[in-house]
Amino acid sequence: MVTKPIKKEFVRDRFSEVLLGRQSVRRFDSSVKIPREELQEMISEATSAPSACNLQSWHFVVVETPEGKEKAKSVLMPFNHPQLETCSAMVFVLGDTRSYLSYRDVWNKAAEEGRITPEKRDEVFKTFLPLYEHATKDFLVMDATIDSSMVAMQLMLIARAHGYETNPIAGYAADKVAATFGLDPERYVPVVAVAIGKGTEKPIDSQRYNAEELTQFI
Amino acid sequence: MVTKPIKKEFVRDRFSEVLLGRQSVRRFDSSVKIPREELQEMISEATSAPSACNLQSWHFVVVETPEGKEKAKSVLMPFNHPQLETCSAMVFVLGDTRSYLSYRDVWNKAAEEGRITPEKRDEVFKTFLPLYEHATKDFLVMDATIDSSMVAMQLMLIARAHGYETNPIAGYAADKVAATFGLDPERYVPVVAVAIGKGTEKPIDSQRYNAEELTQFI
Repeated sequence: MVTKPIKKEFVRDRFSEVLLGRQSVRRFDSSVKIPREELQEMISEATSAPSACNLQSWHFVVVETPEGKEKAKSVLMPFNHPQLETCSAMVFVLGDTRSYLSYRDVWNKAAEEGRITPEKRDEVFKTFLPLYEHATKDFLVMDATIDSSMVAMQLMLIARAHGYETNPIAGYAADKVAATFGLDPERYVPVVAVAIGKGTEKPIDSQRYNAEELTQFI
Repeated sequence: MVTKPIKKEFVRDRFSEVLLGRQSVRRFDSSVKIPREELQEMISEATSAPSACNLQSWHFVVVETPEGKEKAKSVLMPFNHPQLETCSAMVFVLGDTRSYLSYRDVWNKAAEEGRITPEKRDEVFKTFLPLYEHATKDFLVMDATIDSSMVAMQLMLIARAHGYETNPIAGYAADKVAATFGLDPERYVPVVAVAIGKGTEKPIDSQRYNAEELTQFI
């Protein structure tokens, strides 16, 4: 486990500009290559997202080679092929429904290293871990989906902070994604794919409902 | 539908500080009241999040009165009561599994007002809307869960930009939330509750796995 630095210089570092200015871009400059180090850095920054019981039930498949793009193309719906063909990388975010399996080891290690007390560890082992170890598949899928959606949202924002644009994509054969990428489909559920690159089109000015119509105060 | 401004002055507007510095806070200054206008503004800003087919399958219940807190308490697990008791507001984000019902009206109106062409509208009606109108409950729940998780992630970041701290909460009786707030439980699925307020404790320095262990490049 690692503790992230909380300050860093981003290319685009005005919060309002990064977040309120984010819009989907579907055509990218295909000549732009983002170094693996930077892609990994963006993913690492995105994992500052919260997760249920800090289980971090997410997994990332970064598609960036011609071979990888061929695999991704076989699962993506045709209207999402242009993003795949032009983006620098497409990050498939999958939920890990068995993230709890490694959690016992992680907490044991933390206790051994003195980062938490054995009592705190035992409390965790007695309270929430059994919830996961005895959970239904539906519960685990839901939990992993929420964690993964949040980390994907952060990834889209961080990509903008790095000077890139994104398009979140759900139009794929969900039942084929994990196996296509060599992952156990019983364990990993696809949640969203994020195309990342330098935008070459003006984004569509997509509108939103007036939020007041969707909000109730009690 | 409304188009959001993309620039704004936030109290805390350094992206790296807002996002990388976000940590869960579970105790708040209970004397701090956030005006409804500001809560609504934060929610409105959060809805700049993307959603599948722009269906915006989210709904917000803002708990901020003593009566509202009593209702929320009846569904929250006891270890989440301190957040509820001390926060300025707890926003329950629910997924709307029938958001597509109003979409036909929205696009008809957009075409009438000349914002999109009738051909574009017809294309939408023929392509993705039938996917939703004939979708299984599981598909609709998953879609609404992803949308709602993303908007909740944005809400947590925006709250920090407004100078507040948050704690995302999933520890509640999920099967009772909608009905407790007077919503149709067949339509609305609880995704996450976000406690918002002025923090009074140093957040726990929660750690993350090394992201490289969760990432594969292809």
